[in-house]
Amino acid sequence: MNSHHDDIRAVMWRNDKLYLLDQRLLPHQQKFLAFEKTAAVADAIRDMVVRGAPAIGVTAAYGVVLAARGVYATGPSAWRQAIETELALLAAARPTAVNLCWALERMKRVMEDVQGDPEPILLQEAKLLHEEDIQANRRMGELGAALIERPCSVLTHCNTGSLATGGYGTALGVIRSAFAVGRVEGVFADETRPWLQGARLTAWELVQDQIPVTLLADGAAAWLMSRGKIDWVIVGADRIAANGDAANKIGTYSAAVNARYHGVKLMVVAPLSTIDRSTPDGKAIPIEQRPAIEVLSLAGQPVAAEGAAAWNPSFDVTPAELIDAIVTEKGVVLKPDAARVAALFDAA
Amino acid sequence: MNSHHDDIRAVMWRNDKLYLLDQRLLPHQQKFLAFEKTAAVADAIRDMVVRGAPAIGVTAAYGVVLAARGVYATGPSAWRQAIETELALLAAARPTAVNLCWALERMKRVMEDVQGDPEPILLQEAKLLHEEDIQANRRMGELGAALIERPCSVLTHCNTGSLATGGYGTALGVIRSAFAVGRVEGVFADETRPWLQGARLTAWELVQDQIPVTLLADGAAAWLMSRGKIDWVIVGADRIAANGDAANKIGTYSAAVNARYHGVKLMVVAPLSTIDRSTPDGKAIPIEQRPAIEVLSLAGQPVAAEGAAAWNPSFDVTPAELIDAIVTEKGVVLKPDAARVAALFDAA
Repeated sequence: MNSHHDDIRAVMWRNDKLYLLDQRLLPHQQKFLAFEKTAAVADAIRDMVVRGAPAIGVTAAYGVVLAARGVYATGPSAWRQAIETELALLAAARPTAVNLCWALERMKRVMEDVQGDPEPILLQEAKLLHEEDIQANRRMGELGAALIERPCSVLTHCNTGSLATGGYGTALGVIRSAFAVGRVEGVFADETRPWLQGARLTAWELVQDQIPVTLLADGAAAWLMSRGKIDWVIVGADRIAANGDAANKIGTYSAAVNARYHGVKLMVVAPLSTIDRSTPDGKAIPIEQRPAIEVLSLAGQPVAAEGAAAWNPSFDVTPAELIDAIVTEKGVVLKPDAARVAALFDAA
Repeated sequence: MNSHHDDIRAVMWRNDKLYLLDQRLLPHQQKFLAFEKTAAVADAIRDMVVRGAPAIGVTAAYGVVLAARGVYATGPSAWRQAIETELALLAAARPTAVNLCWALERMKRVMEDVQGDPEPILLQEAKLLHEEDIQANRRMGELGAALIERPCSVLTHCNTGSLATGGYGTALGVIRSAFAVGRVEGVFADETRPWLQGARLTAWELVQDQIPVTLLADGAAAWLMSRGKIDWVIVGADRIAANGDAANKIGTYSAAVNARYHGVKLMVVAPLSTIDRSTPDGKAIPIEQRPAIEVLSLAGQPVAAEGAAAWNPSFDVTPAELIDAIVTEKGVVLKPDAARVAALFDAA
């Protein structure tokens, strides 16, 4: 019964190329784009062909493989210097998701010991990183589902499923696991303006899994909580600071404040690679501002009056004190703070 | 400098017909529709050709004039009975805005004393009601602006301007008056999904008035407040209960909870006709559920995955304890409760 979501892969390596499912076209069109150049991969990350912190990390890892192939073909003796430019392109694609830099660092460490052609060993590492992400998601699914004490409805924001990760999902992985054991009866999904990840992507994944999904305008979430319909808000993260503050898709902070006001619990689900121990707290997380046109238009059509400006931060930061649980593949941090987050790493 | 907004009229009586600016087409197209039949007016209210509680009230008053013309032409002796069916059509068009029923009741009282053709005296009353609404908005503008203590930015939700009223606006009237005296420096406007009244209507009005307006996704409002940029949230209402609980466009309650959390003040601006003394509290206010397609589509195009459901309440209720001030044309109610709301009517 859990077979369907295994079929969705947003990031794939096939025939020596990277394939990305173009998420800008979903749910109307399922089209994969093929990549052989690093610069094109960086563009795809920036333009949101692929999005979601873990999926960006996996994509970047494969991007390093393509980079290595290119620079090694050009100059087998000078590839180590030449690849730095390519890696910088990837690193600069989007600023908030730390998984991007984490994946690049991991690939760089493998490069250090390479003799000869770096592509085979880097590809092996990228595939391992990809597979580990899926396994981490499945483990988070189990750990998160265990926190849900009774069959209930949950609210989620943005998309954190197979499309946002190597496969299965972080917050949506928890929802899948909890649904499978009868702890989640239905999902309310914020449509998640301006990019509509909830309406376009999360609903698409859940419909395929036959998990009941009800969309709502982001502004309606507080009213829904006040009706007593929601036990948990379950979301992902793009970067978690050392003290547990969590950056995630714009609108998450509003949901967090409303959850606390209504006695609803908040679960943040993210792999260890999303925790950036070098970022002390949320104030130090860079917040990407995206183009105003995303707010001023809808589905490619202008909606706002000409002459209006727009404020379009892509992320916000939810302070640790509003988070009831951070779920990682290595364990759960309840009531997160700097000490409890550090303890997770010491245990691991 | 305040000349422009005087030009916008969403509801007009010209050449013995009712004209409504079709707000579904704004800001791309400015098209007036002409009405001569009550049923068509009821349809226009339900389908949101016209929206905003005070504008619906004014429209309904003119709808009664058209109803009277029709039934009196058919049977001058039996029009009093025949018109009841027409009034019921209007009353049933939308359930939440109490101004609709208030306007119908006012027109009915005038009918009682009519001798002969009811149209002239009803038209006179409808025009008076319309003019009084504009005057009330201007008075609320002054009273509300006086509550703003220092030049600041404000956040508003939905559209409460000339388009939502007889003219000038409720919450947007306060913003206009406050801008004119230098107390409002700029306006942040929630785009207000699903119908995008903020992006399509509020931005359009403010751009015409040359008041700086910045749109944002509804889910971004909390993050904006946390940045310390907002002193006041200023909104309208579709019905205010006797205890001060206020129904308004879905998303208002989320803004209210977030305002309280961030120490931002909340002002609700509405004419006395919006206060329903026969509704004891917010629990007794009927909340209109609108079609799921409004959430599942955008600008006429489907966005969500097929098979997804949607929850689409058109309004939510903000409890009085989250409201710092209710501004009416008869005065301001600070920290509203049942006694203070009643005192407003005793004074008036």
